[in-house]
This record gives sequence, C-alpha cells and structure tokens, in this order.
Amino acid sequence: MYNVSIRDHMMIAHSFRGDVFGPAQRLHGATYVVDVEFRRPDLDADGIVVDIGRASEALHSILAQLTYRNLDDEPSFAGRNTTTEVLARTIFDRVVAAIRAGGFGGGARAITTVRVTLHESHIASASFEGRVD
Amino acid sequence: MYNVSIRDHMMIAHSFRGDVFGPAQRLHGATYVVDVEFRRPDLDADGIVVDIGRASEALHSILAQLTYRNLDDEPSFAGRNTTTEVLARTIFDRVVAAIRAGGFGGGARAITTVRVTLHESHIASASFEGRVD
Amino acid sequence: MYNVSIRDHMMIAHSFRGDVFGPAQRLHGATYVVDVEFRRPDLDADGIVVDIGRASEALHSILAQLTYRNLDDEPSFAGRNTTTEVLARTIFDRVVAAIRAGGFGGGARAITTVRVTLHESHIASASFEGRVD
Amino acid sequence: MYNVSIRDHMMIAHSFRGDVFGPAQRLHGATYVVDVEFRRPDLDADGIVVDIGRASEALHSILAQLTYRNLDDEPSFAGRNTTTEVLARTIFDRVVAAIRAGGFGGGARAITTVRVTLHESHIASASFEGRVD
Amino acid sequence: MYNVSIRDHMMIAHSFRGDVFGPAQRLHGATYVVDVEFRRPDLDADGIVVDIGRASEALHSILAQLTYRNLDDEPSFAGRNTTTEVLARTIFDRVVAAIRAGGFGGGARAITTVRVTLHESHIASASFEGRVD
Amino acid sequence: MYNVSIRDHMMIAHSFRGDVFGPAQRLHGATYVVDVEFRRPDLDADGIVVDIGRASEALHSILAQLTYRNLDDEPSFAGRNTTTEVLARTIFDRVVAAIRAGGFGGGARAITTVRVTLHESHIASASFEGRVD
Repeated sequence: MYNVSIRDHMMIAHSFRGDVFGPAQRLHGATYVVDVEFRRPDLDADGIVVDIGRASEALHSILAQLTYRNLDDEPSFAGRNTTTEVLARTIFDRVVAAIRAGGFGGGARAITTVRVTLHESHIASASFEGRVD
Repeated sequence: MYNVSIRDHMMIAHSFRGDVFGPAQRLHGATYVVDVEFRRPDLDADGIVVDIGRASEALHSILAQLTYRNLDDEPSFAGRNTTTEVLARTIFDRVVAAIRAGGFGGGARAITTVRVTLHESHIASASFEGRVD
Repeated sequence: MYNVSIRDHMMIAHSFRGDVFGPAQRLHGATYVVDVEFRRPDLDADGIVVDIGRASEALHSILAQLTYRNLDDEPSFAGRNTTTEVLARTIFDRVVAAIRAGGFGGGARAITTVRVTLHESHIASASFEGRVD
Repeated sequence: MYNVSIRDHMMIAHSFRGDVFGPAQRLHGATYVVDVEFRRPDLDADGIVVDIGRASEALHSILAQLTYRNLDDEPSFAGRNTTTEVLARTIFDRVVAAIRAGGFGGGARAITTVRVTLHESHIASASFEGRVD
Repeated sequence: MYNVSIRDHMMIAHSFRGDVFGPAQRLHGATYVVDVEFRRPDLDADGIVVDIGRASEALHSILAQLTYRNLDDEPSFAGRNTTTEVLARTIFDRVVAAIRAGGFGGGARAITTVRVTLHESHIASASFEGRVD
Repeated sequence: MYNVSIRDHMMIAHSFRGDVFGPAQRLHGATYVVDVEFRRPDLDADGIVVDIGRASEALHSILAQLTYRNLDDEPSFAGRNTTTEVLARTIFDRVVAAIRAGGFGGGARAITTVRVTLHESHIASASFEGRVD
C-alpha cells in the first residue's frame, strides 16, 4: 500500500460545552497542524499517489474555509463541540468530497483511504481515517 | 476510525542480557518519550474519543511507577530484558487494565484499540498495538 | 555560558487590529508551544542552572493566567495587539518578575538572561530575549 | 503487534518526466529522511523485534547504493520516474530481499510487515507498506 | 531583543569539488528546510517584527530562484562549492538586499539582524547570521 | 558568522545527590540527543566551517566514552552530579580539546565558538557554549 502525506495548518477560536472540558469551556483557540495522508494500492502512470502540488492547493482551500474564524459562529457546527476529533472528521469529509468532485485531480479518484490528523500541541493530536469509496 | 494521541515521558536505567545487545549489556539508561493512541469507531456525546485531561493524568500515574528507577531491580521484570519493545507492551497492558477499571473515565471503555510508542532517540522507536476488548 | 530550556503550551483566542493582519483581524486563536531558556555563566553547587521541576511549575502557573482565554477580553492587553511577539514579551516580563520574587527558587536569581519563544505553527515562531538583572 | 522503527537518510539528484511535475521536471534533488518500520506479532527470545544495530547497518548499506547519486543515471530506474513513492517501494523491496537473505539477522525472518517512509521536506512524505512473507 | 522566524524549503541538485567531500563530489541533491530569523530591538506600531505574510512571500520568491535547479549550472555560483554554508550566506545576502529594497515591507527596514538556517537532514544544518544595517 | 550543527546521541545511567532532585536521586537514566554547533567568521577554501564527515566521527568517538555506561561509576565524574548541564560542559571541553589536537581536521582550528546542547526529553534541554581560542 502506498501513502502520501502533506501538511498545512489553521488557527481558530472556539469554546466547548460539557463539564468534561473544564477551562476549555471558555472561549479560547488553537493552531492545528494538519496532516492529510492519501493511500492507494498502486501508483498512476506518472509514479505518484496524487499530484502533491494540486493536493496542497486543494487542502489549503478547504482549510481556508475554517482558519481565522471563531467556530462558535459557524452554522455548519451549530449545536456541536468542535473538538479536535470532530474537526478531523469534518476535514476528512471535505477532502473526500473534493476528491470525488475532481478537486485533487482525476488520478486522485483511485485513492482508497484518507487519514486526517490534527496536531493541537506538542503533546496531543487527533485523527479520523476512513475509506474514500 | 477516530484516534487521539497523548505524549509524556519517563527516564530509566537498565541493562540487557544477550550478546546481541553489545555495549547495551552494561548498565545504561534511556529517556522514553511515550505516545499513547486511543482508537474507537465513534465519538461519545461530547464529541471526544477520551477525556484528554483525565487520560493524561492516568498515563502519568502509570509512567510514575516506572520512571526514575533502575528496571533491573523491579520484580515485575525479573528474568526479562526490558527492551523498548517489552516496555511498550508493559505500558500497553497497564493502560488497557486502567481503561477497563475506569481510570481513563467511563467513556473510555468504548475504546477498541490502543497503541503505545516509545521513542528512545531521534533515530529509533518501538511500539505495541492491540485491542482493548 | 550555560543554558537550560523547558517547554509548555497555552491555547488562546484573540483578534488583531490593523490592515497588515488581513484575515487575522477576525476573532481566531492559536496554540503557542512555549520554550523558556534560562542562562547563567556558572552552575550552582548542585550542578544546575535552575531547578527544572520548580521552574516547570512556575512557568505553568504563569501560562495558566493566559491559557483557555480570549485575550481580547483581558484588561492587561487593552488597546494592544496580542501578537506572538507581544505575548513572548509578556511572558518574559512575568518570568523575570517571578525569578526576582523567588518563584523559580533562590538559586534562580543567578540567572542573567531569559529567552521566551512561542511556536505558533510548524512554520512560524517569535521570541523575546533580555537580561534579568 | 510489535513495531520497531529506525531512521537514516540519503541525498540524491533526479528529474521527472510529465507535465504534472511542473518545475520538478528540471534536474533538482532531495534529502530523504528514511524511516523503516518492522512489525511482527511476537518478540524473539531476547525480547526484540530485530537487532537494531544490525538493522541499522543493513539499512545503511541499502541506502549507500542510492545516496550521493544522480538517479537519472541509474540503470535500475531507466524509463521510470524516481518519485518519493517509487523510491519508498524500491527501498522496501531491497529491505525485504535483505531480510530474506539474512542480512537483518536470522531472527528478522519472523518479521511479517515492513513500512518504508521517505520524508522529503517538513511538509511532505511518502511510504510503501507490505508483507514480507 | 525580539525575533520572528519563518520556514520554507527548496530542493536542488549540485556536486562539490575537493577530496574533503568524498562521495558528495558526485552529482547529488538536497532538500533544504530554510528558517529565516528577523531580529530588532523594538516592535512597530502594530506590535510586530515583520509582516509574516509579506515576509513569507518575499522568502518564497527568493527560494524560487534556487529551487528545482542544478546549482552546478547557475552562473552566480560559478567556480564555487554550493555547500550548505555558502547557500545560507547566499540566501542571507538576498534577504538583506530585499529588506533594503522594501520587499519585506517598509517596517522591515528596522530589522537589525538576520539569521538564515538550512537544515539538510535530521542530523545536520548550517546557518549564516549577520547585521542588516 | 557561520554555524554548522551536527547531531548524535548517547544513553547513560546515573543518580543525583541533593534534595532538589527529588525522585531523580534514585538510579535512573537518560537518552541525550546531542547537537554540537561550530561557529567561525569565515569559511575555508572549500566553502565549509568543518568537514562534517570527520566532525561526526570525532563527536561519535567522544560520545562513545560516555554512552552505555553508569556515570556514577566513572572516575572523571567522582563527587559531582552528572546533570545535563554538567554533561554539556564535559562534552564541550572534550570537543574543544579534540579540535585543538586536530581531531576535527586542520581547518577546524579556525572555529571560534562551540555550543553543545543535550536534549533530555521532548520538553527539556541544556547547553554549554564557549570560545575555542
């Protein structure tokens, strides 16, 4: 199985509801360093999993919809905690939708699995991994 | 599949028996930077895999039983080499036992898989991964 | 010259005023991984620059006054942009005040220079460095 | 499942054919920081996955056949793009062949899976993972 | 003293002349992860050392003149070894020239010192540091 | 000012005397990832600060005298705590002596400053920096 991973980041504000979050119930924020891994069993004719240049631009566009925002005000997250886990899943869903729509290039449709990891500090991260097809 | 990873460390002395270990047969030591990954297919009602604050405390308690010690003197390792692989397994077993006993919070019982990675230097690491249930 | 460096982090929300900041004029947030370096020309009788355990606790207390907050609402930053540079200076000032007040231990008063670095992502950081005496 | 990972690197020149590569069609180069992970379900009698010293030497020998070279001139890559993905696969094949030939030690034949990851920059990497048996 | 650091990278081919370089006398290549640090004693009215967005674009333009090239063919390096040290100095000179020409923004002219570091692998780097004025 | 930095590591056991060390008064151990930086104002005729290959071998030889040992048993540390600071100074002294003796190559005698940093975990490090001449 082949894998390619690219990195970008986003910087957001948010707050959480639930006693389990302690002081993180207050409005605060985070930098998420975002790694997206693309997997497929075979390479295309050029010898690649995905066009890294195009994938980097597509990922950047997806993160541009989230970065420099207060996620508490985003309708798409209404009524939900925007935990690192939930954000990893959200970005996964948007990456998969973009792959299917051709945003990562035609060859990217052969990708079978995607994993999105968000590093929130030097000691904690969360990810979501799932199939594309 | 969701994944959350937390990091801590421990600093121990030990020696190895067996020609394969060369100079590591002498009493020496290591810092192990410890990553523990928790996986489950769905999030709980708060949108998390595990309460990171509680998990960090629980992991710290487990490592406190090992750190700042000469593992050659620990009865639980009598007759065994405390290689990075063996220590990864030992911490895995203790994390799983603590999850089952509620030490990582009630919701943590939904975790299906745990992976424990010990980084022993900038060029080497070992891990053990297994199911919780 | 001897140097000891310790690491912790904080997670805050804020916004900036000024066209130069572009989309960062919106309410957003950041994780700052914080490195504090302590320098002195000679070691104390124990062979250390500073008691790392005590210094880590003192730094954690200083960061606890900032983390999990919206800095736009903090009176101490009223009328100022809480840029990474400004926050590095703020933490520097508080570390130096705590050193002088004995919060880093009596021996820490021999520290001559402190440098505070805030890593805001995998590609950007800022620091402030100055003398203690 | 146990896993051990070791790290080394190589520095090569090459060029790519195909419009998808843009400016990388020109002769350029890369440092690849190479991580090789070895997995097996059980440890040997010494408590290890593989003799790290011997594995490091064996990996270094494999990389010595590639490093400090212009891969465009290497007959083994004639007619193929030496993308990060292709190089990860090439190193995987050579590691597996060496394991089978005893180059990683007799005990290494119990390894069931190998993953080779090449980090080409702070924002991109590729890997190939497959079974040994 | 305030400091801001930004990161980018470039990927080049080259060869060295001189017995000291051993196998690196052959045509090979490198990824250089490039950190540029900007220092000044005081912040501007916005509370910053330099406009990070503009500085990142200016650095990217400077590296675009070097990346994806065989430096053996670049007239500006004729007769010289393009060692990591020489490249750090070259990028330093170009950054300083761009600062003076206003390419990093008008406020950047208050920068007093620049340091350029090139990481060539996980175990080696080189830098050049000098004054701007 | 030019700077070149190389990395290696060592793994030792030791214990500390003094209440300030708390549980580290027990026999324990550490991995030290060791960075050595060499500085000089000008490059040699080959365009380098130091022959990295030779410097890496010389550093490895110096660390070989310490690694895989219990430092409590080393006569050269009798009566002293082998703190990270003390070890950074010890390695600095040995590197400087080796530079003067020609062990880092004849050109290395032009090095004016050396800095030795020991990373003991992901959150703590210590260094010693001084002049060679």
